[in-house]
Amino acid sequence: MTTPVITAFDRSPDGGRGLARDTRVRWALEEVGQAYEVKPMTFEALKQPQHLARNPFGQIPTFEAGGLTLFETGGIILHIAQSYPGLLPDDADGQARAQMWMFAAVNSVEPAILELFNAKIVEGDKPWAAERLPIVMERARKPLQRLAAALGENEWLDGAFSAGDLMMVSVLLRFRPAGLLDEFPTLAAYVARGEARPAYKRAFDAQLAFNTRPQESEA
Amino acid sequence: MTTPVITAFDRSPDGGRGLARDTRVRWALEEVGQAYEVKPMTFEALKQPQHLARNPFGQIPTFEAGGLTLFETGGIILHIAQSYPGLLPDDADGQARAQMWMFAAVNSVEPAILELFNAKIVEGDKPWAAERLPIVMERARKPLQRLAAALGENEWLDGAFSAGDLMMVSVLLRFRPAGLLDEFPTLAAYVARGEARPAYKRAFDAQLAFNTRPQESEA
Repeated sequence: MTTPVITAFDRSPDGGRGLARDTRVRWALEEVGQAYEVKPMTFEALKQPQHLARNPFGQIPTFEAGGLTLFETGGIILHIAQSYPGLLPDDADGQARAQMWMFAAVNSVEPAILELFNAKIVEGDKPWAAERLPIVMERARKPLQRLAAALGENEWLDGAFSAGDLMMVSVLLRFRPAGLLDEFPTLAAYVARGEARPAYKRAFDAQLAFNTRPQESEA
Repeated sequence: MTTPVITAFDRSPDGGRGLARDTRVRWALEEVGQAYEVKPMTFEALKQPQHLARNPFGQIPTFEAGGLTLFETGGIILHIAQSYPGLLPDDADGQARAQMWMFAAVNSVEPAILELFNAKIVEGDKPWAAERLPIVMERARKPLQRLAAALGENEWLDGAFSAGDLMMVSVLLRFRPAGLLDEFPTLAAYVARGEARPAYKRAFDAQLAFNTRPQESEA
């Protein structure tokens, strides 16, 4: 594979806490040992035709390599997992289950934290914000309860670490700032195992350095 | 493949309008020409250990075939697409893009309609419901605007019909009852092309017959 180019926020709104989705793609590339380049995108540039041609939803990350352009974090990570060894089991049934967990992360777990983000940030100034927030928080606990029961005391979701775990850990990290992750000790420990992986640490450090780099206008 | 067994609501809350997620799996199986059996699940049965072992999130559909058990609609459909010809392009780049559109459907488009469902149904009796609904509706238009721009006048999202279209059309169908789909004529026409496929019609008719079948207690 030619060196992939991914896009990331010029400056992530989270200041480098690693919650922007480029961290997930960086992590996958670090797991498989593939170097990459990062193209910084301002918020204005995200809505320009040049970027909308990469990603019609005007978001980061995107992935470009050897004529292939992808958007959507799940699609990018699955492609990386299929292109290199290390992120999918060898057997077809195991691969199907790893893919299943990727979809579960983004469709059965992540919508709850997207809704919580909207409740806290987008609608934070609405008159109903204070009364509504506990309702949305309670709704966000539901998938975590189910996931905790499924994980039990296992190290990873289905045998060895896979792209399914990479995506699930990444989604769960978004529940931490609201205090929800720490309500589920086995999930918090699962996430900590993900964070302890050398590839995750390299990805996290890279996005932190990127998001705190001096820029020309600041030099 | 041995004849797969999928689960579906014993009686879908939508009365057979085809919006329950088993319709998506039925459609995929019809596209590839694989017969299947359906195990009906009451709401009570969904929360029992026997079903939670199939799907820890306690939902339908699940998929069981030859020792493999899957949950999560996206994971099931991708597995079907990988197991039979007809739902993925032949080339690796095209496959990566079809997978990408599957993830885009469930992660960049569907969360908006999940939030709208919560606003209308789950929080429909709250004092803020009437004032908040237009805000959530407006938020739900955003991904549709982006998707309409990406689709343009094309027949399908990326060349021939794929599992990406199957998932996107299925997700878009959920926007129709709120009137949002018909605000975007090219998306409405795209969905209509999906509904016109013989495999979709067979899937729809099968779920309708299933959800309106006479039951013993009603006989």
